[in-house]
Amino acid sequence: MQKGEPQKFLTGRPTVEAAEEILGKPYLCLDHGFVRLVDYMGDDASIVQAARVSYGKGTKSVSDDRGLIRYLLRHDHNTPLEMVELKFHAKMPIFVARQWVRHRTASINEISGRYSILDREFYVPEPQVIAAQSTTNKQGRGEVVSPEQAEEVRELITRESDRAYDTYQELLNEKGEEGKPKLARELARMNLTLNSYTQWYWKTDLHNLMHFLKLRTDKHAQYEIRVFAEAMAKMTKAVAPIAYEAFEDFVVMDNTLKLSRLEKRALGLILGGKSAEEAAKLVFPGKKDNLSGEGREFLEKLKGVV
Amino acid sequence: MQKGEPQKFLTGRPTVEAAEEILGKPYLCLDHGFVRLVDYMGDDASIVQAARVSYGKGTKSVSDDRGLIRYLLRHDHNTPLEMVELKFHAKMPIFVARQWVRHRTASINEISGRYSILDREFYVPEPQVIAAQSTTNKQGRGEVVSPEQAEEVRELITRESDRAYDTYQELLNEKGEEGKPKLARELARMNLTLNSYTQWYWKTDLHNLMHFLKLRTDKHAQYEIRVFAEAMAKMTKAVAPIAYEAFEDFVVMDNTLKLSRLEKRALGLILGGKSAEEAAKLVFPGKKDNLSGEGREFLEKLKGVV
Amino acid sequence: MQKGEPQKFLTGRPTVEAAEEILGKPYLCLDHGFVRLVDYMGDDASIVQAARVSYGKGTKSVSDDRGLIRYLLRHDHNTPLEMVELKFHAKMPIFVARQWVRHRTASINEISGRYSILDREFYVPEPQVIAAQSTTNKQGRGEVVSPEQAEEVRELITRESDRAYDTYQELLNEKGEEGKPKLARELARMNLTLNSYTQWYWKTDLHNLMHFLKLRTDKHAQYEIRVFAEAMAKMTKAVAPIAYEAFEDFVVMDNTLKLSRLEKRALGLILGGKSAEEAAKLVFPGKKDNLSGEGREFLEKLKGVV
Amino acid sequence: MQKGEPQKFLTGRPTVEAAEEILGKPYLCLDHGFVRLVDYMGDDASIVQAARVSYGKGTKSVSDDRGLIRYLLRHDHNTPLEMVELKFHAKMPIFVARQWVRHRTASINEISGRYSILDREFYVPEPQVIAAQSTTNKQGRGEVVSPEQAEEVRELITRESDRAYDTYQELLNEKGEEGKPKLARELARMNLTLNSYTQWYWKTDLHNLMHFLKLRTDKHAQYEIRVFAEAMAKMTKAVAPIAYEAFEDFVVMDNTLKLSRLEKRALGLILGGKSAEEAAKLVFPGKKDNLSGEGREFLEKLKGVV
Repeated sequence: MQKGEPQKFLTGRPTVEAAEEILGKPYLCLDHGFVRLVDYMGDDASIVQAARVSYGKGTKSVSDDRGLIRYLLRHDHNTPLEMVELKFHAKMPIFVARQWVRHRTASINEISGRYSILDREFYVPEPQVIAAQSTTNKQGRGEVVSPEQAEEVRELITRESDRAYDTYQELLNEKGEEGKPKLARELARMNLTLNSYTQWYWKTDLHNLMHFLKLRTDKHAQYEIRVFAEAMAKMTKAVAPIAYEAFEDFVVMDNTLKLSRLEKRALGLILGGKSAEEAAKLVFPGKKDNLSGEGREFLEKLKGVV
Repeated sequence: MQKGEPQKFLTGRPTVEAAEEILGKPYLCLDHGFVRLVDYMGDDASIVQAARVSYGKGTKSVSDDRGLIRYLLRHDHNTPLEMVELKFHAKMPIFVARQWVRHRTASINEISGRYSILDREFYVPEPQVIAAQSTTNKQGRGEVVSPEQAEEVRELITRESDRAYDTYQELLNEKGEEGKPKLARELARMNLTLNSYTQWYWKTDLHNLMHFLKLRTDKHAQYEIRVFAEAMAKMTKAVAPIAYEAFEDFVVMDNTLKLSRLEKRALGLILGGKSAEEAAKLVFPGKKDNLSGEGREFLEKLKGVV
Repeated sequence: MQKGEPQKFLTGRPTVEAAEEILGKPYLCLDHGFVRLVDYMGDDASIVQAARVSYGKGTKSVSDDRGLIRYLLRHDHNTPLEMVELKFHAKMPIFVARQWVRHRTASINEISGRYSILDREFYVPEPQVIAAQSTTNKQGRGEVVSPEQAEEVRELITRESDRAYDTYQELLNEKGEEGKPKLARELARMNLTLNSYTQWYWKTDLHNLMHFLKLRTDKHAQYEIRVFAEAMAKMTKAVAPIAYEAFEDFVVMDNTLKLSRLEKRALGLILGGKSAEEAAKLVFPGKKDNLSGEGREFLEKLKGVV
Repeated sequence: MQKGEPQKFLTGRPTVEAAEEILGKPYLCLDHGFVRLVDYMGDDASIVQAARVSYGKGTKSVSDDRGLIRYLLRHDHNTPLEMVELKFHAKMPIFVARQWVRHRTASINEISGRYSILDREFYVPEPQVIAAQSTTNKQGRGEVVSPEQAEEVRELITRESDRAYDTYQELLNEKGEEGKPKLARELARMNLTLNSYTQWYWKTDLHNLMHFLKLRTDKHAQYEIRVFAEAMAKMTKAVAPIAYEAFEDFVVMDNTLKLSRLEKRALGLILGGKSAEEAAKLVFPGKKDNLSGEGREFLEKLKGVV
């Protein structure tokens, strides 16, 4: 937004140096996208401030802010996290925006294809992320394809996106070619492909942002949205480093372990002396290898522990 | 879902005959879309039941259900409307889904392009709704184009959508053509155009549904989503006819009139004997015709009254 | 929170001088309550910034920020208002908190009576607001009672609240009187009266805040919550003065006029030459004075216009 | 609501026999409260129906409904659960309602103390649940007090609640005693104690209901709200037994185990041969017993496993 040095103001509000340093600076994502922190409200201390109201007098025993914040996240006491807000400006392919918008507790202002003419910009994946359909996971990628195949895919996507945009322009007829209508923007845009870039302002609180980051930085999230989530995770860390550390320790799915009632029982058997396989077969009997699907998932989880 | 006559069950829940009749039946929308009511909870009486709890003893003066429901809607007491739920199954172009999803207070389950292969179905507008960009409204349609031009537009859109789907199939390589990857579905779909059809289950309560209907049946809504909203309005009327009648009387924007502080003052001048133009110029002085933009909007509104 | 002059920091975030001046300062409300602005995010320009993304290129015709903000509020385009946040610290009687909490789109951290011992503070209304039950409005106050009666009411309430607090203390037995239990706080508090003070941090965005202010500054809101809403309205004006002015012009119920389908028809008859009474009787036939309840409401509304 | 046998209707909607049996029947809670299921929408199959849209073709591998529902809950794919709704009518002490209302994603219609005169009904705890403040948990109960002390507590609470209600009546002056005002209801009620009963209609979807049940059936929830949550859990099981079973296996906090990043590391050491104490001291060094607070929590958790 600003040319040269951004203007600075004096404020009595909670202010975080690390956040001020990145304020407004775009983190490039994918080939034409970005995300930048445009505003924030509150810091780690704001979480404590809100929690202490709900705890009132007598918080001496939870001796310091870090301890309290970790306690809150460890025990799913998330409402004080709602007292911190982050606002982002992001530009992303439409298919990424379609996943992103499913997080309903955020505020969004998106550029309108009814009102504006969208730019000739579309996402073409880098060769190293072009992969075949996974054979084990119905909704994920498997092996990366060969460099030659990747190049072919890129060419196909580029050609088609370009052609779709050409037709978009032809329909819009901005130059006013005679005998042709200037089609309504809201109609012409229907011809654009889902990798076209859109942009929006997106704002949410730290509680809901952590939920977004938990799901969208996870390995099961589609690569393209993960790129944005990872950039946003860095900015979140800048705004509230203590809460972010607690998030990594207690919330991030790959870091933590969640066991079901039956898995807990199986772990009990293991701690009592049984091998993992024995325990799994006892608790999760099934057809394949005498194990049910839940049993196989359990053994998979355990591998991540040892 | 069912073949032949749908199965019937005995229930003690509020049941509406008119709703039962349309349950599960698709209302066709656009060229390949539909919307159907798949479930509902509550009826007009459920609104009254909820409101009477909040009013407790002593409601004798609001003598009947219709009177109470009209009172509630007239005075924006909308929470009792939340006690009625409607669930729809709908199939619509992606650009329509993108507008629809902005209503954040609904529950959605959409078909996933990461998991499933989408069908070769895309929206091509009928000639009579293909229009040029409006010259007065930055985000709307103006004049319908000539039949020949419309045909050209339809051909262009059909050709491009078809080609995009061909490429989608080529990328997916479901037949396993040799030397070519079976590209991950989540990648291949980025080549589809925004008029491709998607589908979802969508559920919300009557309060939030009325807000949706208010905005999406209005003349400023894009035609394509309006078609769905109008079908849903009919189903809403079937479930809660008294509330729906009140909605038409007190909420629908084209039926009602909302005046600002200054417009109210201008109306006062008119009721006191001034002409509309005199009043507008006095209250809304401006450059063009001695009228501000708000003044012109006011005169436009008045035309809708007399 | 701060002793002496509050510390100031340099920030690149949108900063509003008028808001900085009131930051952290309590506005006293009722006899022991207050509300203060403890943080804010964004300003009038942030609304425009968000709206312009959704409008993209080509906004030259909406020439200035004020014009755009007024346009947004006039046409119920409220999402850009969500880009501004205000955070309050407030202390209020529990019966006020119970009304306040019904606004579900806010974040709240309240002091916990399970964890903390509440203070001996309760609300006793000033004589000039002690009124009899309204005889026309089932949920409002009517005539103010005589000074003597008011004094009696105040004495009764004071005595009872005091006694309830005495018992609360007796149950808590903080001093450890022998032979008596130190009852769990979560149990002891059930004996407190609804005029006991509680406090919380409360944060919401400008869109939802305006909805709160619309309902809670209105004459139909209970006086006690109105006092808080009016203080918050002043703080809102400090943060976003242009949006607040538009709120007063287009949203505040007492300032504006909303006519139903039938009322609009009646107004048409009046503008066509009929008297208000004639028009009302034609459009709203009923038993009492040949007028229905809706008709009487209409005539009442018209009085506010001329 | 109904006298004698409730009327039955024919419906094409998903209908659950076990839910029909309990429909409208009050489950008594505490001394004067109750909760009853007044309506529901959807069943286990509705969850599958919604999920299958989001999965579309190709769900053959998740062979049956139970498997799919368990998969959804195991992997936090909760949106299909939102397609089921339950509506309750409940009567509870105000201090319970104050905890309950913090679940913001529900619809509520509560009886209004501005409009109605509340009944002379207040909660007095049974002797066996009257307990001293916990000495280890700042927000919970400890030891149950002696029968004599319990009786004293009950008498104190009964006396005070009665007296508060007497004063409420005196202020209301419904009988119209001369020389005394009939105080506005909205004022008079401020003198009632927090154990007074209120009632409401409360409706939410299965996803949000499970979150409520998770928190409010947990041992850390206050006993009085737990009584309601446990009754509602039974009704939830009646409506969607498969989803409820999965809830017990994967969500209920006491049944499952959640380990943090560091706890996971410590478990790895244990599975590698170290004793629990050794592992905890290595991963969680601290002052007390060479263990930090997180370390002590970890050892406590492990005890629940073996």
